Amino acid sequence: MSDIKKVVLAYSGGLDTSVIVRWLQETYNCEVVTFTADLGQGEEVEPARAKAEALGVKEIYIDDLREEFVRDFVFPMFRANTIYEGEYLLGTSIARPLIAKRLIEIANETGADAISHGATGKGNDQVRFELGAYALKPGVAVIAPWREWDLTSRETLMAYCEEHNIPVDFSTKKKKSPYSMDANLLHISFEGGVLEEPWAEAEEDMWRWTVSPEKAPDEPTYIELTYLNGDITAIDGEALSPATVLEKLNKIGGANGIGRLDIVENRFVGMKARGCYETPGGTIMMKAHRAIESITLDREAAHLKDELMPRYAELIYNGFWWSEERKMLQQMIDYSQRYVNGDVRLKLYKGNVIVVGRRSDDSLFDESIATFEDDAGSYNQKDAEGFIKLNALRMRIASSKGRNLLED
Amino acid sequence: MSDIKKVVLAYSGGLDTSVIVRWLQETYNCEVVTFTADLGQGEEVEPARAKAEALGVKEIYIDDLREEFVRDFVFPMFRANTIYEGEYLLGTSIARPLIAKRLIEIANETGADAISHGATGKGNDQVRFELGAYALKPGVAVIAPWREWDLTSRETLMAYCEEHNIPVDFSTKKKKSPYSMDANLLHISFEGGVLEEPWAEAEEDMWRWTVSPEKAPDEPTYIELTYLNGDITAIDGEALSPATVLEKLNKIGGANGIGRLDIVENRFVGMKARGCYETPGGTIMMKAHRAIESITLDREAAHLKDELMPRYAELIYNGFWWSEERKMLQQMIDYSQRYVNGDVRLKLYKGNVIVVGRRSDDSLFDESIATFEDDAGSYNQKDAEGFIKLNALRMRIASSKGRNLLED
Amino acid sequence: MSDIKKVVLAYSGGLDTSVIVRWLQETYNCEVVTFTADLGQGEEVEPARAKAEALGVKEIYIDDLREEFVRDFVFPMFRANTIYEGEYLLGTSIARPLIAKRLIEIANETGADAISHGATGKGNDQVRFELGAYALKPGVAVIAPWREWDLTSRETLMAYCEEHNIPVDFSTKKKKSPYSMDANLLHISFEGGVLEEPWAEAEEDMWRWTVSPEKAPDEPTYIELTYLNGDITAIDGEALSPATVLEKLNKIGGANGIGRLDIVENRFVGMKARGCYETPGGTIMMKAHRAIESITLDREAAHLKDELMPRYAELIYNGFWWSEERKMLQQMIDYSQRYVNGDVRLKLYKGNVIVVGRRSDDSLFDESIATFEDDAGSYNQKDAEGFIKLNALRMRIASSKGRNLLED
Amino acid sequence: MSDIKKVVLAYSGGLDTSVIVRWLQETYNCEVVTFTADLGQGEEVEPARAKAEALGVKEIYIDDLREEFVRDFVFPMFRANTIYEGEYLLGTSIARPLIAKRLIEIANETGADAISHGATGKGNDQVRFELGAYALKPGVAVIAPWREWDLTSRETLMAYCEEHNIPVDFSTKKKKSPYSMDANLLHISFEGGVLEEPWAEAEEDMWRWTVSPEKAPDEPTYIELTYLNGDITAIDGEALSPATVLEKLNKIGGANGIGRLDIVENRFVGMKARGCYETPGGTIMMKAHRAIESITLDREAAHLKDELMPRYAELIYNGFWWSEERKMLQQMIDYSQRYVNGDVRLKLYKGNVIVVGRRSDDSLFDESIATFEDDAGSYNQKDAEGFIKLNALRMRIASSKGRNLLED
Repeated sequence: MSDIKKVVLAYSGGLDTSVIVRWLQETYNCEVVTFTADLGQGEEVEPARAKAEALGVKEIYIDDLREEFVRDFVFPMFRANTIYEGEYLLGTSIARPLIAKRLIEIANETGADAISHGATGKGNDQVRFELGAYALKPGVAVIAPWREWDLTSRETLMAYCEEHNIPVDFSTKKKKSPYSMDANLLHISFEGGVLEEPWAEAEEDMWRWTVSPEKAPDEPTYIELTYLNGDITAIDGEALSPATVLEKLNKIGGANGIGRLDIVENRFVGMKARGCYETPGGTIMMKAHRAIESITLDREAAHLKDELMPRYAELIYNGFWWSEERKMLQQMIDYSQRYVNGDVRLKLYKGNVIVVGRRSDDSLFDESIATFEDDAGSYNQKDAEGFIKLNALRMRIASSKGRNLLED
Repeated sequence: MSDIKKVVLAYSGGLDTSVIVRWLQETYNCEVVTFTADLGQGEEVEPARAKAEALGVKEIYIDDLREEFVRDFVFPMFRANTIYEGEYLLGTSIARPLIAKRLIEIANETGADAISHGATGKGNDQVRFELGAYALKPGVAVIAPWREWDLTSRETLMAYCEEHNIPVDFSTKKKKSPYSMDANLLHISFEGGVLEEPWAEAEEDMWRWTVSPEKAPDEPTYIELTYLNGDITAIDGEALSPATVLEKLNKIGGANGIGRLDIVENRFVGMKARGCYETPGGTIMMKAHRAIESITLDREAAHLKDELMPRYAELIYNGFWWSEERKMLQQMIDYSQRYVNGDVRLKLYKGNVIVVGRRSDDSLFDESIATFEDDAGSYNQKDAEGFIKLNALRMRIASSKGRNLLED
Repeated sequence: MSDIKKVVLAYSGGLDTSVIVRWLQETYNCEVVTFTADLGQGEEVEPARAKAEALGVKEIYIDDLREEFVRDFVFPMFRANTIYEGEYLLGTSIARPLIAKRLIEIANETGADAISHGATGKGNDQVRFELGAYALKPGVAVIAPWREWDLTSRETLMAYCEEHNIPVDFSTKKKKSPYSMDANLLHISFEGGVLEEPWAEAEEDMWRWTVSPEKAPDEPTYIELTYLNGDITAIDGEALSPATVLEKLNKIGGANGIGRLDIVENRFVGMKARGCYETPGGTIMMKAHRAIESITLDREAAHLKDELMPRYAELIYNGFWWSEERKMLQQMIDYSQRYVNGDVRLKLYKGNVIVVGRRSDDSLFDESIATFEDDAGSYNQKDAEGFIKLNALRMRIASSKGRNLLED
Repeated sequence: MSDIKKVVLAYSGGLDTSVIVRWLQETYNCEVVTFTADLGQGEEVEPARAKAEALGVKEIYIDDLREEFVRDFVFPMFRANTIYEGEYLLGTSIARPLIAKRLIEIANETGADAISHGATGKGNDQVRFELGAYALKPGVAVIAPWREWDLTSRETLMAYCEEHNIPVDFSTKKKKSPYSMDANLLHISFEGGVLEEPWAEAEEDMWRWTVSPEKAPDEPTYIELTYLNGDITAIDGEALSPATVLEKLNKIGGANGIGRLDIVENRFVGMKARGCYETPGGTIMMKAHRAIESITLDREAAHLKDELMPRYAELIYNGFWWSEERKMLQQMIDYSQRYVNGDVRLKLYKGNVIVVGRRSDDSLFDESIATFEDDAGSYNQKDAEGFIKLNALRMRIASSKGRNLLED
């Protein structure tokens, strides 16, 4: 323990991580470098500077990572139509590898030998931070205060603050929320509080980024998204950067009551947990990406992606972004997107994302074949007979050999 | 050709299949047995009797298959959370193997040596009917008039009717819809017409089973579904048979604007096709089943199901219900449902299906572990360190051996 | 620690586990129950009784588990054609869940609150023992001395023996092997020593159960295996119990130089390790089972099994035998075996297992179709044209839409 | 039919394809272009020129495709450790897409509107040829004489020769083999004759490229293979081109009795068929490639490859080489090979391929961790406890909630 000289901390500027600064300084007698990232969480990051300075931190990193976050993490993930356990769009999970990357980069720049974070010992985020850190700097030490200290209740934490002169207004939330929250450009999440009872309905005033479908406008909003190689490059004809795309979709989606989710999910560490999420832009992107793929992607390419998606999602959820297997899958996914170009038109209305049109110069939709009229060009209906007969052959043989395929 | 003596036809009582009756009688000089099924399509089936009689049919089968359809086909499919290409709930696909089964049973009863159907040579339904028929009676002959005859336009068909004295009011739809439609208890589908242009929005008056979200009530509807072994057995505490469950959910869902879908899908025969679907009850069931599984299913069981689901969906879509591989997957899926018991509470509102609660005597949700308070019972936060370190080991070794996992 | 009253130890009677008996008694001040299993490792188990008694053990369990081992573990695994990482037949892995099961059964019988084993902290076996124990008795305590104590070298261990009056002839091997070995009816394994250098060839005198191919007889041995539901029930027409089948195949295989393997494998705990294995009977069974399946299993059933096999193998390797996902897969696998009946004829010669014939009343091989002569019965060569054309359709469309499938 | 002007025929120079030349000229009244490829089948291709000329062919293509075959088809396939149905190394399958590619290239060069081949209507090769042709030239016509003509017996074929003045010495085999054979650098295959009875042992004098293990040398042969990015670049230190690598391994393997296989396989067209194969070099490559991967590939990368391999194999077997999904998988596989560098040392002896050593500058084998001695550097045995406990957590919860994981 005692041989750690300098530690880079993922620092939000909030109360918990401010306590960690002091606790690290005292417990490990080491220098603390703070790193605060703007990932689009919707709070100012610059105030973290003064707070860190007040705690005696000399090396303070404050980065705007929004574009990198969406371009290199969110967009690649959406190319795969990634959903964890059929529901969750991985808003928290996908931000962690980027934070881990910056922690290690800063450790390398500042000569730090350790990193630290404010995630608890029961959640997935500790895993995601640490797997990323170990992957990128195998000899790094990791300090996870929540697994070490005894400040595990609000009371002991407050007592520590008082004892160590940590101003309690370091708390980023004006009045303490009953929920454990996390936010970035992709989503805001809620855990804890009343949510720990899976039968209890989430309270309406918990939600922050979306109006309820009930309160959403009575008139639908139509938007048109333009795709290039599987990524959105324009909204309603206006070219936008990745982060700006997501910001704009969050705004439009949130206003239309889109993107709320309330689930019980399976954590990598082994237990089930209730989580509520608001992912307005992501919910729109998911629906739209499938729509543009539906006309530009080969059938078997799409099916292969679908079969591998749950595993890809699991890898991201579990924190294996920097692993070889995630990169292998990404190679395959990215390659598949080279024709995923075109436009998707959507109708947004009170929580619904409705695809109303899709078009592409790379479309594989062939009206002349799909039509119900006479055989056109390359399709001869009589081919279907042979197609069916040979697809049936193995079953016909089994049946003719005496197997009863009905009651078997 | 000429050696076919008797053929069982899947007969809707509509114009097209009435033409087929006559065409089979004339072309094959054989006896025609008609089979009309009530699968919950929402039209009377009994009138088919008089029409068949008028065409000289002597053996007429009219069956109410609604309970068998939901119990033995729809429910087993929903145990797998089955979705084709991320969107489609397989409403048409899942009815075909049951019709194939009855066609063959009737062929066996009546001594028929062939079956026939009214599906075109470009679609999936011909495949589904015929794969089922061949699997269950390998020596059966199949007659697919749409692949053989030249009555491929409305005009030629009408001319045939006139020439052969087939009353045109055999058409089941008062005025001819511009769409090709199919309906059963699970859904109603629309193809053709304006839908053949994927950029064109579906017209509001196409939809039949659901009101638009805009026209749905301004007040939400709450319902509670009870599950036993993965199947719904009661709604709001009232025990219901499988078909009745689905009927009721269709009604509630349709009234709340739930279950519309507009997609471009990949057919088994190789082309892309636009389809619109209304699946009100199925959309509710899908969401609810995931919710009850979320608290009762082991994590890896759920993930295994998720990874195999796309293949299972593809098998049903492609018509391989009676295949060995579908049955193998079903064995696994059904086994996994033995603890999928409990209640799900849903809020339905203008197209949205919102899970607001789930509970079960077989719940694996363990509040004492998931809570953010101090370590309880079986969970020790310090275990996470070793867990992470060994999960990271292979990446740490790779990195320490000189591989750059960041830029690799 | 100190609240453990009684511990059940997997006891081989050898030096290491004898030291553990004493170490447990002293360190935990608890009663030790020993459990020694005959899994066909080829050593007497009864002598373990006197040794345990000499160490003051009062409750001594010595079980012959050979039939249960082969019937309920080895045979089910071979139904899946299970191979880990393309090579390893899982001889060690498959014995562990049975030992875990018995440890827990004995703990329940004797009122013990803990179990213990002699596996190191770097290997897979600790994981397999403990996952099994936790699954079957969630509140059990596990003591893994090799992760706790400091007797980690041969010297410190010997010193402990001397100090605590443990007779060194408790060592089961007359002269200490340089290898770490494990044996049961399925295989004997070797790790450590010169094997830790992956470039070094294993020494000939390491191998114990097989002669080298060079020393095997110059005349081949022919055998005939009879299968029922995927399991071998007779050899050369003689009905045999599961364990007797494997014993006999080990003898025949070993005499013919069959079943040696030298690999580098990936452990669950994260590192690579060199292992050498002798699996004479298992190597024969693997080849023969594929042969009987080749004529009795449907194509897609076989392919589905092949695709899931690596995951099934990984589950067993990693110790998840008692998990829900392993059982789900087993349901599917076992179901698939209901027609896997018949005979396989093999030629064994100097390390080679050569299939020379297979036959079955449930064969799906249809000579009349496979023959190169004129079309017979159910196969019409002209069907192939339509089959190919529709299989090609999606590629033809892509190509005709301007995609270059050659250089893409 | 009659509008075909020119057809490119895959022409072996043998009797069957010579008959096809004449049959095409007469039946379709079109010009025939012949294409004969040297794929390493071990027969002169140049004699095909005179035969084609004698049949009046004006455009004659004779290509040496050996290097392209191994470099662009065989090697990429072996990077995936590709095996069909657990046994078959796909020697025939992998040559077909290259022939299809050349047929289309020649069609484009010569302005032909059709291609033709000599594969029957019951086999896989027709599918592979035609899927390739359609993918690369969607409007091409395909003529498959064996599906059209009535020359389906040896007698009718001979009668046709006599009638049309086709010299019977066009037969490439001196005396007619009872087997249907196919050969290229990767293998030679045998079907038909006595093999149509799966219980009958193949006759010793059928085999052509390998001596029997019995006749192989009594002394083992040691070789060392050098890998770069997953491909063999040198044997025993001598740098060799891809085709030369395979030629040399065929020679060494054949001399040592390596690479015989006798299986019943499942054809894409739906029936089972018996096939015998000699793949001496490929058998060596398969074993060696796994060995070099065993020390250079990340565990999960290897497992992902293993899980996808059966599907990749199926794609090649079924003829989908030019499909999007095969290319997607190839992207992933090729990417995974960037560190698959190093040497493998093999002992070849009477049918056995025995790995005796593997080494690599990119090895991930870490002796300091794998050793049984005290904890070294990055591995702390105590980490295993937490690792196991959290891996067990979901089972512990299920068990503590009352589920019986033993009897469930």
